[in-house]
Amino acid sequence: MAQAHWGCGPWLVLFCAYAWGHPKPEDLGREDVRNCSISPPYLPVTAVNTTARLAALRQQMQAQNLAAYIVPDTDAHMSEYISKFDDRRAWMTGFTGSAGVAVVSLSKAAIWTDSRYWTQAERQMDCNWELHKEVGTNPIVTWLLTEIPESGRVGFDPFLFSVGTWESYELALQGSNRNLVSITNNLVDLVWGAERPPVPNQPIYALQEAFTGSTWQEKVSGIRSQMRKHLKAPTAVLLSALDETAWLFNLRSSDISYNPFFYSYALLTDSSIRLFANKSRFSPDTLKYLNASCTGAMCVQIEDYNQVRNSVQKYASGNVKIWIGTSYTTYGLYEVIPKEKLVADNYSPVMMTKAVKTSKEQALLKASHVRDAIAVIRYLVWLEKNVPKGTVNEFSGAELVDAFRREEEFSSGTSFETISASGLNAALAHYSPTKEIHRTLSLDEMYLLDSGGQYWDGTTDITRTVHWGTPSAFQKEAYTRVLMGNIDLSRLVFPAATSGRVMEVFARRALWDVGLNYGHGTGHGIGNFLCVHEWPVGFQSNNIAMAKGMFTSIEPGYYQDGEFGIRLEDVALVVEAKTKYPGTYLTFEVVSLVPYDRNLINVSLLSPEQLQYLNHYYQTIREKVGPELQRRQLLEEFRWLQRHTEPLTAAGTPQSASLAAALAASTLAILSWSV
Amino acid sequence: MAQAHWGCGPWLVLFCAYAWGHPKPEDLGREDVRNCSISPPYLPVTAVNTTARLAALRQQMQAQNLAAYIVPDTDAHMSEYISKFDDRRAWMTGFTGSAGVAVVSLSKAAIWTDSRYWTQAERQMDCNWELHKEVGTNPIVTWLLTEIPESGRVGFDPFLFSVGTWESYELALQGSNRNLVSITNNLVDLVWGAERPPVPNQPIYALQEAFTGSTWQEKVSGIRSQMRKHLKAPTAVLLSALDETAWLFNLRSSDISYNPFFYSYALLTDSSIRLFANKSRFSPDTLKYLNASCTGAMCVQIEDYNQVRNSVQKYASGNVKIWIGTSYTTYGLYEVIPKEKLVADNYSPVMMTKAVKTSKEQALLKASHVRDAIAVIRYLVWLEKNVPKGTVNEFSGAELVDAFRREEEFSSGTSFETISASGLNAALAHYSPTKEIHRTLSLDEMYLLDSGGQYWDGTTDITRTVHWGTPSAFQKEAYTRVLMGNIDLSRLVFPAATSGRVMEVFARRALWDVGLNYGHGTGHGIGNFLCVHEWPVGFQSNNIAMAKGMFTSIEPGYYQDGEFGIRLEDVALVVEAKTKYPGTYLTFEVVSLVPYDRNLINVSLLSPEQLQYLNHYYQTIREKVGPELQRRQLLEEFRWLQRHTEPLTAAGTPQSASLAAALAASTLAILSWSV
Repeated sequence: MAQAHWGCGPWLVLFCAYAWGHPKPEDLGREDVRNCSISPPYLPVTAVNTTARLAALRQQMQAQNLAAYIVPDTDAHMSEYISKFDDRRAWMTGFTGSAGVAVVSLSKAAIWTDSRYWTQAERQMDCNWELHKEVGTNPIVTWLLTEIPESGRVGFDPFLFSVGTWESYELALQGSNRNLVSITNNLVDLVWGAERPPVPNQPIYALQEAFTGSTWQEKVSGIRSQMRKHLKAPTAVLLSALDETAWLFNLRSSDISYNPFFYSYALLTDSSIRLFANKSRFSPDTLKYLNASCTGAMCVQIEDYNQVRNSVQKYASGNVKIWIGTSYTTYGLYEVIPKEKLVADNYSPVMMTKAVKTSKEQALLKASHVRDAIAVIRYLVWLEKNVPKGTVNEFSGAELVDAFRREEEFSSGTSFETISASGLNAALAHYSPTKEIHRTLSLDEMYLLDSGGQYWDGTTDITRTVHWGTPSAFQKEAYTRVLMGNIDLSRLVFPAATSGRVMEVFARRALWDVGLNYGHGTGHGIGNFLCVHEWPVGFQSNNIAMAKGMFTSIEPGYYQDGEFGIRLEDVALVVEAKTKYPGTYLTFEVVSLVPYDRNLINVSLLSPEQLQYLNHYYQTIREKVGPELQRRQLLEEFRWLQRHTEPLTAAGTPQSASLAAALAASTLAILSWSV
Repeated sequence: MAQAHWGCGPWLVLFCAYAWGHPKPEDLGREDVRNCSISPPYLPVTAVNTTARLAALRQQMQAQNLAAYIVPDTDAHMSEYISKFDDRRAWMTGFTGSAGVAVVSLSKAAIWTDSRYWTQAERQMDCNWELHKEVGTNPIVTWLLTEIPESGRVGFDPFLFSVGTWESYELALQGSNRNLVSITNNLVDLVWGAERPPVPNQPIYALQEAFTGSTWQEKVSGIRSQMRKHLKAPTAVLLSALDETAWLFNLRSSDISYNPFFYSYALLTDSSIRLFANKSRFSPDTLKYLNASCTGAMCVQIEDYNQVRNSVQKYASGNVKIWIGTSYTTYGLYEVIPKEKLVADNYSPVMMTKAVKTSKEQALLKASHVRDAIAVIRYLVWLEKNVPKGTVNEFSGAELVDAFRREEEFSSGTSFETISASGLNAALAHYSPTKEIHRTLSLDEMYLLDSGGQYWDGTTDITRTVHWGTPSAFQKEAYTRVLMGNIDLSRLVFPAATSGRVMEVFARRALWDVGLNYGHGTGHGIGNFLCVHEWPVGFQSNNIAMAKGMFTSIEPGYYQDGEFGIRLEDVALVVEAKTKYPGTYLTFEVVSLVPYDRNLINVSLLSPEQLQYLNHYYQTIREKVGPELQRRQLLEEFRWLQRHTEPLTAAGTPQSASLAAALAASTLAILSWSV
């Protein structure tokens, strides 16, 4: 699934990098968006009046002698999805998109966001705000250098900056005579007041042992063992990401939509375990499960969530060394640890350990993908029958596939907001329909479904694109080249420890060949009832090298602005490859089990190797999903599956490569050539 | 050509990364190498007694209260090749390999080098030295943490550490309670004494205008224009790499073997130009060429080389901002510039500008490659006749190809020490024969030639591997897969600004498919009568993105330890690609013009696209080199060229893909199938 945010996985940050030549979305209608170039400015009804809140914020800035204040789009855990309670940027600007950083100076206010959100920002913001169609630290700093005077102070909330973000601002501002100033009292919170939503407070519960890779005690022992083996001898590990605490203690809750997490930090020392969370949220049973009443090395002491900074600062005053992952630790905690007491890696040992699934976790994740495939197949079968009637729209369709998922065993809802997009809407990579605004599915358009489920045993994420009528030759070519990219990456054999960043080009080459491309990343890790974008596995430059036991999505796409969008996404497990000559090589085993759309495949473009791979994959789908459909008496779906996984052949196509496959497969023997 | 060093281009630093599973070279014979595990230790005659010099160094260390001292393998300009005058590491340790860092503590001495040099180090070092078969900062720091006590001071010469190297040590030592200490008086120099070779002192001369892309005045104006446009408003650019000053002023000399450079720095300010070099080396004409007698904005003031630190420090005391490239600036200059007066990029604007060749420079480089191809072809023709006689050895062969190059117009020698390696020697990627130790070329072995020339118009670098007898099926498969990798990368179509790091996997995939790989980088930039490994272009992670007008080598290989080595290297220009759908896409135009060995190609492994590319390349060779051979009456060579560039066909091969090509090419029409 396509997302662009820091958090569970900031995996699509390249989304609108200009290098990929991503097309600019057009404004959908003049009356929908603001027009600040006329006098008086035109504002649509969707625009939010931010004049008063900006004035209040600037008062706070002046009290702190700030020339500018940065309002990021994340929370204190660098989460991908954030709670309304934390959505300061949305409240401040009116713009509710998931990605975008706001900066307010004493005279101007500006926001930086990517192409997915340009139209939305023009609809939601009033004319107090400049819209900058760029992302990253450098454009913001460039603006700051123009807008604020030398010696100007730039304020920020240290709990909303990762160490890396803070470093990138420091670096970009170096030598500019403007200074970053850490201010722990968030200035937006000071002016937000009573409008602010309440802090989430649902119960925190322990996952059943059947759904965990190992007990929390085993996990704690494993991390402590890594601490002891570490050359720099850390005495503690500090955990800030929400899926780190959820994974380590096998605990879950629902503080953030689609994410079974709870607000927390953990300080795991060599002799104690402190979990910073709201104690009232634990039942007596859960407290007992955690050994919360004792203080030994295997007892989890619950401390108040808001005390984490003081508690870490106090611990850091001793003869200790604290191991952190800088990607998920905020500057708010980093700055209270003396540098010589810090053992800083990009990712904490919990993040690194979680990335490689145990064999039990692998089996759990695979099992969830079989059930997930059944939900998606039920939906595709239903669409085939109902789209021709003209009664299905993007929103009702999304509701139905979500409902099919909820009917599956161990379901705990969807893993993100379903992207159900028909025709030109699918070219907006982050589109989701609403009850009010949606498009009717039709035989004349392509339809893209990017959806996933949370199950107690695993998190899923799959994208299929279909066409029930007569696609154009270009649509078929684009679809087939996306498929070729998916196949080329899925069947790649690569040396152990190769970085995903250098292999993802195999998913692009079939598109590049003819001058096409896509403007987002190629895949992301995924968890066991955790993040749908689980860091640090994936194909971006800041992902770690691929290792046996990791799961990643593989999801090339192509987007024709204003016309259609294609994405083919599967989840795959990294497994050992058997090579002709001995060596430690890896490859992928795709665990998503839904066939592609035969109506959109131009078989003549496929190489013999791609065709062979595809037919082998279809055979696997038949073997894994077929019996389960039969067991459940889903016979219509079973027949659909058989039909859609018939082996594809190159016969009847004029392409030499495919002809060769046909020859090799069947007719070679009858030829009398000197072969 | 395969090198692993920081300097012009540290492009092969991955050479023995364990991830690639590079085989370990075996010790070639027990009597050749030291044996420190017996008592008394066994030392070969090639080992150098370092006991006295180590004792003298430790005295200096104690005087500075140092627990350890680092002796790197570079010079004050981060040069790839260094003068004997600068080879402190070699003198200190006895080990003369081009890559390897030594560290001396008060009780131990150790060296870190890559697999190319393990045997050589065991031959040259006495038992004072531990050999560590790893590279990079982290293994050294790990050793330091074990060997020196807390609070220990680790000394280093700041002129032998780039800013990046210094940062990597600082980072690795962070929190360890050991401190890096910058000591400007090099301690090895203090004990080296009279044995130290003299400082190079040949004349510095101006390149003829016919061989320059533009005048130095135009280049200076261009850099100043970049300074004015820069948001941080630098007032000066400080240049430290030797090819930066050579390129900027169109000056050359011969301070370092194979490199037409001279020891120098430059400080180019908005109103002055200071060139730090030995003034006595300039002729009156050259001084006039540089306007060295005036002090205006377009006058080059020559200052003493040794005054650079003082001069930069003095300049930095004003209201200025100095723009540096941290990769080539040493900590010795970096530490005298206040941080707020620094504008630090990875590479200086000179390095970045030099990377993109002007159309004149492109034409010059291409022309040098035509002449270079003729030298190599003459040698290959000569080998074909003389190897069967058994009278050619690696060394005499290297001498001959070097001589052929020197006969070419505008020759200024070779661009690196010719790698002429037969049989198992070719598996040692950095092997060069000597007059004393070499192997006879034979019909029974593969032969690898990696060589290049310096010409006034361009620098060249090409590798061909040949077999005059009957290669094994495995040798042919390995050779063909290396060729497939070369072709797949050379014919890749990619979006503008794609990083080389992510495309070089295309050069590996054909090998990966069967569990083979190579342990070095895939290519490096190259200059116009400058570095053979010209940074920052290439396929490594610290190279910059590919842009139209850059030149890079493309050189996959395969090495079967103890048996044979294969490398196929071409130089290619980045050009615009014409794609089916519009977009800014690039591809490569190969400018090396020597055919591959038909005897080693298993055509049946090639895809139709690879075959088509290869035949098109052969056609280009015919068109560009053929007429020049005829013009010179090199008719035997002309016939050889025609024979070796005959189009290859897939006919007669049982592989389906190639069969398809044959079908498509010739026989399709006669078939009555429904195609």
